[in-house]
Amino acid sequence: MTGITTTGEKRLVLISGRGYPELAQEVARELGVELVDTTAYDFANGEIYVRFQESLRGCDAFVIQSHTAPINQWVMEQLIMTDALKRASAKRISCVMPFYGYARQDKKHRGREPISARLMADLFKAAGADRLICVDLHAAQIQGYFDGPVDHLWALPLLAGYVGSRVDRSSLTIVSPDAGRVRVADQWSDKLGAPLAIIHKRRDPNVPNQVKVHEVVGDVQGRTCVLVDDMIDTAGTICQAADALFDSGAADVIVTATHAVLSGPAVDRLKNSRISEVIVTNTLPIPEERQFDQLTVLSIAPLVARAIREVFDDGSVTSLFDGNV
Amino acid sequence: MTGITTTGEKRLVLISGRGYPELAQEVARELGVELVDTTAYDFANGEIYVRFQESLRGCDAFVIQSHTAPINQWVMEQLIMTDALKRASAKRISCVMPFYGYARQDKKHRGREPISARLMADLFKAAGADRLICVDLHAAQIQGYFDGPVDHLWALPLLAGYVGSRVDRSSLTIVSPDAGRVRVADQWSDKLGAPLAIIHKRRDPNVPNQVKVHEVVGDVQGRTCVLVDDMIDTAGTICQAADALFDSGAADVIVTATHAVLSGPAVDRLKNSRISEVIVTNTLPIPEERQFDQLTVLSIAPLVARAIREVFDDGSVTSLFDGNV
Amino acid sequence: MTGITTTGEKRLVLISGRGYPELAQEVARELGVELVDTTAYDFANGEIYVRFQESLRGCDAFVIQSHTAPINQWVMEQLIMTDALKRASAKRISCVMPFYGYARQDKKHRGREPISARLMADLFKAAGADRLICVDLHAAQIQGYFDGPVDHLWALPLLAGYVGSRVDRSSLTIVSPDAGRVRVADQWSDKLGAPLAIIHKRRDPNVPNQVKVHEVVGDVQGRTCVLVDDMIDTAGTICQAADALFDSGAADVIVTATHAVLSGPAVDRLKNSRISEVIVTNTLPIPEERQFDQLTVLSIAPLVARAIREVFDDGSVTSLFDGNV
Amino acid sequence: MTGITTTGEKRLVLISGRGYPELAQEVARELGVELVDTTAYDFANGEIYVRFQESLRGCDAFVIQSHTAPINQWVMEQLIMTDALKRASAKRISCVMPFYGYARQDKKHRGREPISARLMADLFKAAGADRLICVDLHAAQIQGYFDGPVDHLWALPLLAGYVGSRVDRSSLTIVSPDAGRVRVADQWSDKLGAPLAIIHKRRDPNVPNQVKVHEVVGDVQGRTCVLVDDMIDTAGTICQAADALFDSGAADVIVTATHAVLSGPAVDRLKNSRISEVIVTNTLPIPEERQFDQLTVLSIAPLVARAIREVFDDGSVTSLFDGNV
Amino acid sequence: MTGITTTGEKRLVLISGRGYPELAQEVARELGVELVDTTAYDFANGEIYVRFQESLRGCDAFVIQSHTAPINQWVMEQLIMTDALKRASAKRISCVMPFYGYARQDKKHRGREPISARLMADLFKAAGADRLICVDLHAAQIQGYFDGPVDHLWALPLLAGYVGSRVDRSSLTIVSPDAGRVRVADQWSDKLGAPLAIIHKRRDPNVPNQVKVHEVVGDVQGRTCVLVDDMIDTAGTICQAADALFDSGAADVIVTATHAVLSGPAVDRLKNSRISEVIVTNTLPIPEERQFDQLTVLSIAPLVARAIREVFDDGSVTSLFDGNV
Amino acid sequence: MTGITTTGEKRLVLISGRGYPELAQEVARELGVELVDTTAYDFANGEIYVRFQESLRGCDAFVIQSHTAPINQWVMEQLIMTDALKRASAKRISCVMPFYGYARQDKKHRGREPISARLMADLFKAAGADRLICVDLHAAQIQGYFDGPVDHLWALPLLAGYVGSRVDRSSLTIVSPDAGRVRVADQWSDKLGAPLAIIHKRRDPNVPNQVKVHEVVGDVQGRTCVLVDDMIDTAGTICQAADALFDSGAADVIVTATHAVLSGPAVDRLKNSRISEVIVTNTLPIPEERQFDQLTVLSIAPLVARAIREVFDDGSVTSLFDGNV
Repeated sequence: MTGITTTGEKRLVLISGRGYPELAQEVARELGVELVDTTAYDFANGEIYVRFQESLRGCDAFVIQSHTAPINQWVMEQLIMTDALKRASAKRISCVMPFYGYARQDKKHRGREPISARLMADLFKAAGADRLICVDLHAAQIQGYFDGPVDHLWALPLLAGYVGSRVDRSSLTIVSPDAGRVRVADQWSDKLGAPLAIIHKRRDPNVPNQVKVHEVVGDVQGRTCVLVDDMIDTAGTICQAADALFDSGAADVIVTATHAVLSGPAVDRLKNSRISEVIVTNTLPIPEERQFDQLTVLSIAPLVARAIREVFDDGSVTSLFDGNV
Repeated sequence: MTGITTTGEKRLVLISGRGYPELAQEVARELGVELVDTTAYDFANGEIYVRFQESLRGCDAFVIQSHTAPINQWVMEQLIMTDALKRASAKRISCVMPFYGYARQDKKHRGREPISARLMADLFKAAGADRLICVDLHAAQIQGYFDGPVDHLWALPLLAGYVGSRVDRSSLTIVSPDAGRVRVADQWSDKLGAPLAIIHKRRDPNVPNQVKVHEVVGDVQGRTCVLVDDMIDTAGTICQAADALFDSGAADVIVTATHAVLSGPAVDRLKNSRISEVIVTNTLPIPEERQFDQLTVLSIAPLVARAIREVFDDGSVTSLFDGNV
Repeated sequence: MTGITTTGEKRLVLISGRGYPELAQEVARELGVELVDTTAYDFANGEIYVRFQESLRGCDAFVIQSHTAPINQWVMEQLIMTDALKRASAKRISCVMPFYGYARQDKKHRGREPISARLMADLFKAAGADRLICVDLHAAQIQGYFDGPVDHLWALPLLAGYVGSRVDRSSLTIVSPDAGRVRVADQWSDKLGAPLAIIHKRRDPNVPNQVKVHEVVGDVQGRTCVLVDDMIDTAGTICQAADALFDSGAADVIVTATHAVLSGPAVDRLKNSRISEVIVTNTLPIPEERQFDQLTVLSIAPLVARAIREVFDDGSVTSLFDGNV
Repeated sequence: MTGITTTGEKRLVLISGRGYPELAQEVARELGVELVDTTAYDFANGEIYVRFQESLRGCDAFVIQSHTAPINQWVMEQLIMTDALKRASAKRISCVMPFYGYARQDKKHRGREPISARLMADLFKAAGADRLICVDLHAAQIQGYFDGPVDHLWALPLLAGYVGSRVDRSSLTIVSPDAGRVRVADQWSDKLGAPLAIIHKRRDPNVPNQVKVHEVVGDVQGRTCVLVDDMIDTAGTICQAADALFDSGAADVIVTATHAVLSGPAVDRLKNSRISEVIVTNTLPIPEERQFDQLTVLSIAPLVARAIREVFDDGSVTSLFDGNV
Repeated sequence: MTGITTTGEKRLVLISGRGYPELAQEVARELGVELVDTTAYDFANGEIYVRFQESLRGCDAFVIQSHTAPINQWVMEQLIMTDALKRASAKRISCVMPFYGYARQDKKHRGREPISARLMADLFKAAGADRLICVDLHAAQIQGYFDGPVDHLWALPLLAGYVGSRVDRSSLTIVSPDAGRVRVADQWSDKLGAPLAIIHKRRDPNVPNQVKVHEVVGDVQGRTCVLVDDMIDTAGTICQAADALFDSGAADVIVTATHAVLSGPAVDRLKNSRISEVIVTNTLPIPEERQFDQLTVLSIAPLVARAIREVFDDGSVTSLFDGNV
Repeated sequence: MTGITTTGEKRLVLISGRGYPELAQEVARELGVELVDTTAYDFANGEIYVRFQESLRGCDAFVIQSHTAPINQWVMEQLIMTDALKRASAKRISCVMPFYGYARQDKKHRGREPISARLMADLFKAAGADRLICVDLHAAQIQGYFDGPVDHLWALPLLAGYVGSRVDRSSLTIVSPDAGRVRVADQWSDKLGAPLAIIHKRRDPNVPNQVKVHEVVGDVQGRTCVLVDDMIDTAGTICQAADALFDSGAADVIVTATHAVLSGPAVDRLKNSRISEVIVTNTLPIPEERQFDQLTVLSIAPLVARAIREVFDDGSVTSLFDGNV
């Protein structure tokens, strides 16, 4: 037999985009590695330049980017980093996107709309991604948009563990802020053994698409209500839901969500609401000026680090779902 | 300029698999065309043979198949027909699957499961399908599984029109049989201007995955409850939901669903239940022996035919969604 | 250099579909492994559910399925298992299909037919298969249908070894039952050093496609004839061929084929024929009620196991062809 | 509705490579078109340059090339022309290859061989071909190698019509020169109502791959034997077969084949044989110095022209198979 | 023949992104069409929403977007619009990008860089673009990055026509500002019959990558120098080149470029330079505050409109290159 | 955990086409390996046959071929070898093409031309190549044509090292023979610290495409001019450039280029010119009869061997660029 034969090796490397380097640093610390020294900056006209400062041939690369504002910039940067890795002969490229941008455009709500969540998956595939690692997708079906393995991590154990350890479970009611989130609320209800309620937006049948009233379906009188959602964007829905709960006699309202988008008026609305605590994770950066007293931020980094390690070691990521899914 | 120049033409043809030829015939009548004469049979070992009896070069082909039992047989037949059309130089191939098989496996509920709904889309793409036409997908996100246009038709106007014209709207309550269907119930609620309730399956936190009780969230006392779902398979969930509603004081329970899978014990359960009417469409065949007194079947054929015609004419299918989506 | 570096490992796992688990068990025993614990069942409407009970990340997976009746069911199950493996991060997926379904539809015999054998290859590719392992393809060209490596095993050494050790070689004549199988007969002739004959179906030129007579081309008077084919389906051709041989003075007729499809009237025809022995392999299951006195079944499991082991070890599968190909 | 709407047109154009322009000219005359004025030449280092002299946007282009010597040159030229058409916005590109190069390497005869016939299909797909048009593929399965429609034309009616009109059918025997061509011989047998014989190459079982004797299987005593093959390359097999036939008492031997490759010693062998006539088509050019007295060349151009016209008109090409396939 | 047959039609529609709607409007006027009424806005977190207000089934769609700042935003918007068109069943999608973003990253200048210009082509392909229409690509090779037709328009005739008509040609010298642009300068030299000079950046061999001096190669004494480039970004190179020319005795310096990126300090540099005129096109928007006295802007809209019309009509775009390429 | 687990291994193998086996041998010696024993010959009609004589499963294969005359033959052979490797289960296939054929057709110079350099990349991708290794591409953008990693080696350090060590650097001027090569000359200028000149082909504006004069831009009086190019094909341009340099007072002219195509009249032109030395590498074979006194050939084998070794070892190829790129 001709040729040269050697033992195969594999090497995990961690790379960070510029969207939220602090989270990447925290994941690196959890893993006990350094981030790959990476040059990344914008040219004067906004085009992004990227270069890695060490050889990455044959490596098992994980590129972390949070799809925070300016979101298109950071998505494009992650795509460009993926292309650079492909051309630098990385063996496998896993794109870690704790918050998956455009996840809400996961179907055509009306004709002639895009399905941007699928487009995102296709763009990452085209750039050379072999795998995606995400936390709490807006719809679990988005896993199926990517043509390859997707590791879908759940923040529920983290968030529910925190909530469960801090409140009297016997007085808890889990509340879904609208019809689309009931399934998540249902999982919380199971996890904490608490009853369920939902906020139903009644529309006026004579005035299309006009919400008439936020109706509380279920019993919340005197209860500590936990409003659960996957993300808080402008906080409009969540604050109206909280008002409806208090109007229906709720004793307290706690809000919990995985992704703290906190756009536009979100912080003001939450700060000025009667909500007693808002519990989120750091899948997205929350700059100091957008933090407020009621806000509790739990770190997602240990979960992401464990998933990366399991993927590298060919271990089971399923265990990260806490067996309750 | 060399060559031969002629005016382009386009030709719609309609082809039926063997899954439910009566529906295809009805669609053909609506369109005013004959079905393409097609040879299709099983060899002794179960392999399917297909051949079209007229030239289909350059045609705009629509292949209708209902994914009914034996479902893998009919899925494979539609794939084989698609392959035959591709090789016979059809210009465009639209696969019409009023009920999209495997739609419920639209995500990994647990690790190491397939996402069969995505696989289905990939198989049809691989076989040569350019477009899918479906009715009431289990999750709207499935549209995004296919790499090409999907025309997603809605039976809601048909079903809600029937229900709305037959009952006293002021006494109606729309009920979702579980947490996963609340969004559909919400649309019914909008359409008919009725309040919402849901059946919540409380699990025992000490006994994982064990349902303790079917809890009615919302007020149903003295109401005519419309239990809405996208499909009725074994009817277990729906009958337990109906029982819970009657136990909570419901005056009457009507069930409505687009897809009448009606597997195993479904017919017996429904026949023997206190449900006063079960309203479905004929996206799937219902053999005579599975029909029963309370069952009302509305025909989906006019909707499918209109969609095919609009697709062929480059018209708008969006109008078929009734503006209410 | 940043990152974590470890020695690479590889892990062979064997998975069985429900088509013919006994064969998979036998292959597992030959390899000295356990089959992966796999949940697989049909939902009430016939949709297949699959889940693997252990982590398969990074593994070199071999999925065995016999494409036996109900063939479309088992093909679909193997596709779904392949999808599940892809999404579970298997490193390489080899689909073992001892009998390749739809192999006979390997060309358009007439216009507007599918090429289902190519479609099969495309479906497995779409689902995520990296490699196919097959035994005695109906036409060797089918290897070229799959976009990737195909290990094409030959049962000829097994079958010819058995025949050669049991009969007087000097009185043997190899017979092809029709024009399409002469190449296989030619290989037998080489292997056993025996002369060749063929059965020619003369058609009436005035009556298209009407066979007039089964004509024996070559000398069979007083010979022990070995009728060779790749598969026995309904056994019609083979029994007519045997009759023609006896009518031409054959002393004995033995039938041998790799794939015992044995559909419909096959067993009755063979049992009631003058054929003295029918020798096949177990690429397909033969339920007890379809077995009969003249039938000899040789196990293909050792050959399949050796091929899997060589594939895993990057050894040579060519040696499994016995150097005579 | 915005925009500009016009009636669609389609335009057939015919393009010729440099392999065999006389055939392309003949096809053009049959179609009543001019060939597209095309610049094609070799640079000093052998690289091919191609440019079309008129706009081909939106056209339905047919590129004819015979895969004659130097075959790799002409294959590459056809690929380059296809690329140029794709980039020039041709609407559909059909590659017409009356002789499909590398068709004989249609499987791995032994391990570690290519399947060049599949590679060819993939190369044409990669270059942008939408369709292939071929005559008498070495194996019909090659149709399935191309991912798209293949129009497979048959010269059998042309050749058999000629033979049938010139000889006494009652004294005819169709002979396959080896085991691999029996299926073709079988079709001739059907078409002309004549019996069948085959030449069997007996190998010495003690000396692998060593042919011992060419054995005539079937009765040829006093018959006019028609040796049929798809191509005549070096004519070694065919001349040995003819000798064996004469040795077995054949009265006359006629040879017929679609593709006149006529490489190396072919012409000398045929000229000096006892074969009375060699009937071929002009799928490949036969330069004057390779023609000889016994050679009859029938033109394939009318068949190719009719196929092109049917493809352009969306008519049926199946009729070109003469209904006998 | 079954089915419905009608005459084919085709419909051109023009769609504009939000990057530079004024250019799209101008192109629309040239074509005599209205832009498709399109909803496009940013969600609070920066995700883009798009919807077309009329049916676009079967249309020949042209989507114009200038890749101006914020460039990643507008690239992503054009991708999303392309996805929406694909899913809305547009027949053909042409992406018009007068300035192709990331064109300068057209190779790996050093290891571990991306080739972002290729990535861009792949992203547009993945989103569903069938064709690109561009003006003066940074390198003509970028045409080859897209897997499909690219119409590459040239502003040279427009710019050179303007310059040629305004200056005394006998005193002109064409100057390339660096080694990479000499080919473009060469074309200007041909077009205007003027001699050539280049600015050579001498580097200090002892100090890597440190430019020592801008050396004028060629004679510019007393000449009117036309500095030509494809784009002016920060104008650093161009202003240093102009200084070197004046230092070498140039009588006057005119600058011309197709793409007026004009980032950062560009306007100040040009305004304060001795350059007498800067001639550009409007492939990119130039907001009023970035305009200055020496700036002349020629409209590219007529050229783009003619190209779109020729593409729609299957005419020749080659004529738009002015025969001089 | 079920299955069999072993340590992974990797094995480098080197394969040579028939284009220039001496170079492959030299690379093998540098690497300390034997070439894989390979059967490769032409059939009588010019079709190529290939087979590897040892198992290559799981190997990291490098296939070297020089794209020399007959170029289409050797390109096709490399494609066929790649296909054979893919089907023989090679783990990774790197195609080493020291001279990349068709590199000059890297754009559409005029309408309706191919982009053959992109086509080449697509053909190698279609055949199964995972990576390309090339030396001095005609345009660096060609790297981006391949969908995967391309290792682009530079002969500049080798050639410039030789030149720099043999001449008085203070009298050197680097000269580009035309506008298209100035960027390469610029790199030489940097590397050797020498000034730059270019040969400008002035065309007569009244006679399109007619070169009027070869004008030397820059000062060459009394200098030792190094004419640099990527390849020497017919040597027409280079000899005219040399004449222009001598006419402008150059003291000496040395020519250097990576690729010695040396087609047609090249050798005679160079032999009979006043050029004192022509320095090239052996990326292409130079048969004895095409060698001449002034020719110096430097071996590229050490560079290629180092690159292959780094690729196999996952080391950095960037270092092979000498840090000066």
